[in-house]
Amino acid sequence: MVVHQEEVEIRTRGRGAVELTDEVRRIVRGARVETGLVHVFCRHTSASLLITENADPAVREDLETFLSDLVPDGDRRFVHVAEGPDDMPAHVRMALLGPSATIPVHQGRLALGTWQGIFLYEHRTAGHLRSVLVTVSGAAASTGRRSG
Amino acid sequence: MVVHQEEVEIRTRGRGAVELTDEVRRIVRGARVETGLVHVFCRHTSASLLITENADPAVREDLETFLSDLVPDGDRRFVHVAEGPDDMPAHVRMALLGPSATIPVHQGRLALGTWQGIFLYEHRTAGHLRSVLVTVSGAAASTGRRSG
Amino acid sequence: MVVHQEEVEIRTRGRGAVELTDEVRRIVRGARVETGLVHVFCRHTSASLLITENADPAVREDLETFLSDLVPDGDRRFVHVAEGPDDMPAHVRMALLGPSATIPVHQGRLALGTWQGIFLYEHRTAGHLRSVLVTVSGAAASTGRRSG
Repeated sequence: MVVHQEEVEIRTRGRGAVELTDEVRRIVRGARVETGLVHVFCRHTSASLLITENADPAVREDLETFLSDLVPDGDRRFVHVAEGPDDMPAHVRMALLGPSATIPVHQGRLALGTWQGIFLYEHRTAGHLRSVLVTVSGAAASTGRRSG
Repeated sequence: MVVHQEEVEIRTRGRGAVELTDEVRRIVRGARVETGLVHVFCRHTSASLLITENADPAVREDLETFLSDLVPDGDRRFVHVAEGPDDMPAHVRMALLGPSATIPVHQGRLALGTWQGIFLYEHRTAGHLRSVLVTVSGAAASTGRRSG
Repeated sequence: MVVHQEEVEIRTRGRGAVELTDEVRRIVRGARVETGLVHVFCRHTSASLLITENADPAVREDLETFLSDLVPDGDRRFVHVAEGPDDMPAHVRMALLGPSATIPVHQGRLALGTWQGIFLYEHRTAGHLRSVLVTVSGAAASTGRRSG
């Protein structure tokens, strides 16, 4: 059994999704786990970890349209506005989308579906430095076998 | 420690929830894990993995009513419409409900609550062949003990 | 490798978030896992497990405002009303927020971000006794080292 943990820091440029798939794939490969799981955790309350379609960028644009209409900035219902009109909407978005994703590792590789990508979703309108903790665990690849 | 991984293929018949609880229970039993976790992952961007009430089918019907009003098919706000009016709504639903569930394994059994069931939720209006990857990991059941 | 599992029972006082962070931290410390994951699972279909901001209580109040407007009690669209006007809305909220959270364990400690807390979110208007199953797994702390 292997447990491998690595932190990834991402500098966001304001609201929107930043793809992490290649970074997670690289960490999985380095962990030399043959069969197991990779857990990707965003250590913030105003950014999410999301799995979604990664082929057509319009999917993320439409998702942003949907979310910004569902949880409008500057909503007068909100009391928690200390950091601005996007403060509480960012917390609501994070509650809805969640802070983490767990993906299987199969034959030493990240077992995403064909169209799935892993994204950090920045919910604040300003850019932030975000910390993502990646944990790979499972049965070790036998030595002599090339995985990934 | 044991890691056991198995793929389940599900042919959906269009939008709605298909129960997988018995299938996951069977895989947990076969894995001979005494204490641990089972992770169930849907490898698609327009179907979700969901835990919800499994006693009254009206719960899934009401959930569908809620979702189809929240994310209407043919919404004119959406740009990503290549595959039809249910294409982008399926991606939004998947972002909201997520692609996976993780459930404890306790004394060799799936430790769901009394009313909880595991469902694949097809978000497209047409049926699809869906791939679900199930990973059971944890401390092995001692030999001589019958689990599940 | 270590797998440690513990049940926590919580008596809720009606709708709202009850913080479990200290309880989960205590269980992680007791498990003596150096590097790994902790999984927190709510065994019910009308209460959720949620990670959100834990510094300003107004965040949870605003989240409740948002959810009760999004999924109103007594909504006439719903058929599943056997247990009252908050019955089906509780199932919808649980589908949106999910039943579990998984958090990394790093250097023997719960690796939450600075502002993140772990909450059981009771969705019913009446209080209930809720069962939460906590599973810690990962590489064991070496003896002689004090973790947490």
